[in-house]
Amino acid sequence: MARVLVDVMLKPEILDPQGEAVANALPRLGVNGITSVRIGKRIELDFEGEADLEQARAVADALLANPVIETFTLRVDEGS
Amino acid sequence: MARVLVDVMLKPEILDPQGEAVANALPRLGVNGITSVRIGKRIELDFEGEADLEQARAVADALLANPVIETFTLRVDEGS
Repeated sequence: MARVLVDVMLKPEILDPQGEAVANALPRLGVNGITSVRIGKRIELDFEGEADLEQARAVADALLANPVIETFTLRVDEGS
Repeated sequence: MARVLVDVMLKPEILDPQGEAVANALPRLGVNGITSVRIGKRIELDFEGEADLEQARAVADALLANPVIETFTLRVDEGS
């Protein structure tokens, strides 16, 4: 088995209200050193045999990321 | 600036309907080699100065993950 990890994050210019909400809650926890919180998705694609990055890219393009507001990166999970 | 990455995934025994929906759509794309899709969260915490993993762990525990259904891992982003 091989695993491909897909990280999907909002583009830097897109507001992230979920991340903002977490950032605004930090002082309550006594945490003051964090300047930014951004929340995205992490997707694990498990392949039967060899990891196929081209296939993973097609899946990410079509089903996992919205190219208008998000970018994604792919990598083979060496730990799997 | 230093960045800590928090990966939050559903525990293996917890059903992931979002991942299932993606998995069920794969044959339409002509993709047949993927056996499992799991969708979690990836959070970027940017620190003013040094990355503080203890602080990041406290934030993940309190605000980012639900320990009943999720697990999380932390790491310093060496690329930042």
